[in-house]
Amino acid sequence: METCFSISLFPPFYFFFLMGITLAQAQAAIQAAHQKCLDMGVKMNIAIVDAGANLTAFARMDGAWLGSLDISIKKAKTARFFDMPTGDLGQASQPGGPLFNIEVSNGGLITFPGGLPIKDGSGTVIGAIGVSGSTVEDDHAVALAGQQAIEGK
Amino acid sequence: METCFSISLFPPFYFFFLMGITLAQAQAAIQAAHQKCLDMGVKMNIAIVDAGANLTAFARMDGAWLGSLDISIKKAKTARFFDMPTGDLGQASQPGGPLFNIEVSNGGLITFPGGLPIKDGSGTVIGAIGVSGSTVEDDHAVALAGQQAIEGK
Amino acid sequence: METCFSISLFPPFYFFFLMGITLAQAQAAIQAAHQKCLDMGVKMNIAIVDAGANLTAFARMDGAWLGSLDISIKKAKTARFFDMPTGDLGQASQPGGPLFNIEVSNGGLITFPGGLPIKDGSGTVIGAIGVSGSTVEDDHAVALAGQQAIEGK
Amino acid sequence: METCFSISLFPPFYFFFLMGITLAQAQAAIQAAHQKCLDMGVKMNIAIVDAGANLTAFARMDGAWLGSLDISIKKAKTARFFDMPTGDLGQASQPGGPLFNIEVSNGGLITFPGGLPIKDGSGTVIGAIGVSGSTVEDDHAVALAGQQAIEGK
Repeated sequence: METCFSISLFPPFYFFFLMGITLAQAQAAIQAAHQKCLDMGVKMNIAIVDAGANLTAFARMDGAWLGSLDISIKKAKTARFFDMPTGDLGQASQPGGPLFNIEVSNGGLITFPGGLPIKDGSGTVIGAIGVSGSTVEDDHAVALAGQQAIEGK
Repeated sequence: METCFSISLFPPFYFFFLMGITLAQAQAAIQAAHQKCLDMGVKMNIAIVDAGANLTAFARMDGAWLGSLDISIKKAKTARFFDMPTGDLGQASQPGGPLFNIEVSNGGLITFPGGLPIKDGSGTVIGAIGVSGSTVEDDHAVALAGQQAIEGK
Repeated sequence: METCFSISLFPPFYFFFLMGITLAQAQAAIQAAHQKCLDMGVKMNIAIVDAGANLTAFARMDGAWLGSLDISIKKAKTARFFDMPTGDLGQASQPGGPLFNIEVSNGGLITFPGGLPIKDGSGTVIGAIGVSGSTVEDDHAVALAGQQAIEGK
Repeated sequence: METCFSISLFPPFYFFFLMGITLAQAQAAIQAAHQKCLDMGVKMNIAIVDAGANLTAFARMDGAWLGSLDISIKKAKTARFFDMPTGDLGQASQPGGPLFNIEVSNGGLITFPGGLPIKDGSGTVIGAIGVSGSTVEDDHAVALAGQQAIEGK
């Protein structure tokens, strides 16, 4: 394992494949979502994944549900896996629906609201945000705040 | 790996982070739940987790369903993951409900009755109990007996 | 799921296949091992499995290593899986040995000392004990105390 | 599932069990570790877990190895599971060592350098940091910077 000491001298896209969202963007999304939580008086787990559905940044607020840790990450992954809000997928996964029980795939999907894809200025999905810790309405509202911190610019 | 031989000389909170419920409390909850099983004529798996959802104490009665071993532990974890009775979560995870198929998260949740959070005198959740081995009504009744052995004091 | 309300009227061996060690024996082994820990000034996770390698009783002392929870259960299972002390198996799993890397089987084995089979008066293995939380020598000493609480009678 | 809107009005310890390190501390540790990476010209995954070994904060620098994502989290968990630097555990898990192949436990441990426990002023372990993305020497140096951001205060 070796270290490339010259990396700080050149723009990073010369050296590696950028998987969509940057850490700087991911942290900005988390900060915006966190602020929204404080405004709403809720305690959340907030996860950001990149275009490869790999965790890029994460924050769990003090006292947030432990069980929401995994759910927030799965929401973010699910939103990127299918490039749609998690709640949209949940519409199709109900009994009798075309994607019934799709949740058992991919190591576990979460298909209720709280996960949203994040797009760049050209409309390309560069990552996703997943939020869990309260009602699904609250989770969605916080995810929206994080998404807009990137898309709204 | 070394052993701290002086530990018995000092209060334990100087040396480790107490994760909520103590072993003594967990064993008292199991004993109370076990006695309730004997009174009811049922055979159960009884699990206690701490505030970190880590198994703290466990007992499987002779002849209790083998499949209930894992279920009892998952019920206890689920109750602590969301600080609510497992049956409450199951209300919201039904088809068409806001949390449909949440059970695929966290390595597997159990959302029918038999799991209850355990609180201390200030109302803080310090752990949870999970019981499995009979009807969900019986499971819940036994879990309640274990919970009350701690909360009722 | 139904409950057999007549169970308290008859000896349990009329109704189910007893998987070796009883809960009463398992709890006696845990109590003896726990007392040994207090005498030695160590904090341990103590697990007992039955002849089917299913968890029967468990106790985690306050402040014991969290990582030892899983290890204690795996030690007990390993000791019953092969009816030998876990350390004996570790002799054969070293590089170049006949069972190199057997640890990856069965969802993960632990092959260093701290797990011991438990036999009844006829020499039949009825379960096993696994202990983790200190040096392997300490772990083994505590496991021995638990084993002897059953075998020594 | 309901939200407690009064939470901002009262000290948090009345409402939930604080699992050691706070999010504010975890983010400060990540920031310090991130800065150290920039100084060293390396790209890392940085994970912080609380006293329950649950992920609390995470950051993956642009272009950091994808395979180091899981390793950084496992290093943090391992350091908290046994309250010691991950490299110390690796000394004992070598062939012929007392803890050979302990890595198969707990869903996978990482026992080479880059994970360090984080203590509060009283010496109690309140969480841990795990870093992965370069040589183990670099990983350790960055973990140390994150740990000291909390312990050095």
